[in-house]
Amino acid sequence: MDDPVLLTGAGGRVGRAILSGISGEYDWRLLDREPVSADALPAGVSEDDTVVADVTDEWQVREAVRDVGAVVHLAGDPRPNAPWDSVLRNNIDGTHAVFDAAAAAGVDRVVFASSNHAVGAYETDERTPDLYRTNDDYRLDGSELPRPSNLYGVSKAAGETLGRYFHDEYGLSVACVRIGNLTEDHPPREYERGQAMWLSHRDCAHLFGRCLEAEYDYEVVYGISNNDRRYYSLERAREVLGYDPQDNSADYTFEGEPKDAA
Amino acid sequence: MDDPVLLTGAGGRVGRAILSGISGEYDWRLLDREPVSADALPAGVSEDDTVVADVTDEWQVREAVRDVGAVVHLAGDPRPNAPWDSVLRNNIDGTHAVFDAAAAAGVDRVVFASSNHAVGAYETDERTPDLYRTNDDYRLDGSELPRPSNLYGVSKAAGETLGRYFHDEYGLSVACVRIGNLTEDHPPREYERGQAMWLSHRDCAHLFGRCLEAEYDYEVVYGISNNDRRYYSLERAREVLGYDPQDNSADYTFEGEPKDAA
Repeated sequence: MDDPVLLTGAGGRVGRAILSGISGEYDWRLLDREPVSADALPAGVSEDDTVVADVTDEWQVREAVRDVGAVVHLAGDPRPNAPWDSVLRNNIDGTHAVFDAAAAAGVDRVVFASSNHAVGAYETDERTPDLYRTNDDYRLDGSELPRPSNLYGVSKAAGETLGRYFHDEYGLSVACVRIGNLTEDHPPREYERGQAMWLSHRDCAHLFGRCLEAEYDYEVVYGISNNDRRYYSLERAREVLGYDPQDNSADYTFEGEPKDAA
Repeated sequence: MDDPVLLTGAGGRVGRAILSGISGEYDWRLLDREPVSADALPAGVSEDDTVVADVTDEWQVREAVRDVGAVVHLAGDPRPNAPWDSVLRNNIDGTHAVFDAAAAAGVDRVVFASSNHAVGAYETDERTPDLYRTNDDYRLDGSELPRPSNLYGVSKAAGETLGRYFHDEYGLSVACVRIGNLTEDHPPREYERGQAMWLSHRDCAHLFGRCLEAEYDYEVVYGISNNDRRYYSLERAREVLGYDPQDNSADYTFEGEPKDAA
């Protein structure tokens, strides 16, 4: 991609994971509500490539999408227990502003950071904890209706539906990535559920890179590593996006230590 | 049901259709932003049973749900071309306020007026106009992901997801009715699509009555009459709710005249 890629929420956890892996491969425009300090910028990205803006301000967003080839939209309130007023404004209205500005500017594609919380209530008492273990073959594959575990998840599901609409109406390619449990270096410690939906930093960066390169119309995929005990299918991400994850929480002990070092 | 039923948006088209059929069967509390004039009230409903309130005002909604046994939530901006700011506020935030107040008050069930526009973009150029005809067997059944044809449809899909969350989290029974093309006396005239998704007034009232009587957890059903040329399945509404529609647009000419009178 020759045109710049706008990364909203660039200073957040997912943004930093993406930049740690593929910062050299694109001409980035980094948007965040807070200024990114110069020493935190990845190599090749200067302060001139940063925008301090709030995605709920449609005029700031319109300015930010100018001349970009793609948008990776991560900005929003990331707290699973965020109150309704915040997710309504920051996540639902903010995501509308990003899709709307992208469509108006003729941007080709938007990659939207959705969440496992959009479907968290499939983890019923009847299904858990077996769901988190390798002997269970239940899989969510992205074709199921949203079933959020909190209002944050409701807001992410609404963002996915906005993406569907902007794809159908304006022809934008839209990929929604239901991000699992993103941690650096090792899977979550002593947390079965988190290990089942672990997403390593390098797999995260690779997956978002594939979302910027592959050809697709509208996709909902799961963003997790190649974990033995997953309950999210990786089929769609592999087939459509060419996602090829390298990490697996089964290579670590329950305490989060690498098994080959044990 | 012995406790009152709160009907939001009571003065709108759907509200009047419901009341025209089943006003005598419940103890109603009619909520609308505009006062309902005394001579427009159905028999048995007095002005004391009306509430002038806006569903976007959470305190007014909390007051309105007090001591009700069920809520039929119709209020919102009904325009398919309504702008984002209006559907965000009136339809998404307003529906959250209703579910939230119902859950806080311990109301047993909420029946939510969703819309065919939540899935309107399944009517692609490749599928239409065959989709609107009896020789086509494509059916949407309520298990498919939303695919809205406009921002109004996005807001209705968000309302369905809110219903899913409030069911899972608080145990409310929630039925979402994707209402077709509601008209009085005869199907829409010279409009294939509208005839395929026709909902007569008496079938509308009967369907919402079934939503107030049947036992269910969370359901998404289509609200149309028993039209020969439908592309929405009635299976779920029949099976779970006991819906038994009496009308069929095939009993009318394309011009909307009853065939038995021709």
